[in-house]
Amino acid sequence: MRIRVHVTPRVGVLDPQGKAVAGGLKSLGFNEVGEVRVGKVIDVTVEGLSEEQALERGRAMAKQLLANEVVEDFDVHVSAN
Amino acid sequence: MRIRVHVTPRVGVLDPQGKAVAGGLKSLGFNEVGEVRVGKVIDVTVEGLSEEQALERGRAMAKQLLANEVVEDFDVHVSAN
Repeated sequence: MRIRVHVTPRVGVLDPQGKAVAGGLKSLGFNEVGEVRVGKVIDVTVEGLSEEQALERGRAMAKQLLANEVVEDFDVHVSAN
Repeated sequence: MRIRVHVTPRVGVLDPQGKAVAGGLKSLGFNEVGEVRVGKVIDVTVEGLSEEQALERGRAMAKQLLANEVVEDFDVHVSAN
């Protein structure tokens, strides 16, 4: 079972990496680009958990280690592989 | 419309950040953790594109700037907001 955690900068928090990517995309001709936000995706393989347990454990991992909730939001998804 | 691009290390490519996160999670008592892979998630807001166009443009952005296909895989999703 795979837990996927997205950790993204909170709305209102400056994201210089996102600004740099937006500038890069525009200079390549992607003129339709508006805001860009760059975050992390963490895939954790776990064994022996139900889907519900995996979701709960994934949230605990995000809160304790993966995300800094002062400046970052996170969401957790669970999939079979 | 939002284009979400995941950029993750290819299978077989060493991921030291993932190893560090796995070690950290285990030391916090998450003993069910197996492999951990850490990648990037890039959210791009675009205007005036259909869903199909956004998907195509997202793939072009990934190929040209966001991902290094020698060592990274990517996937592209499009959502309404």
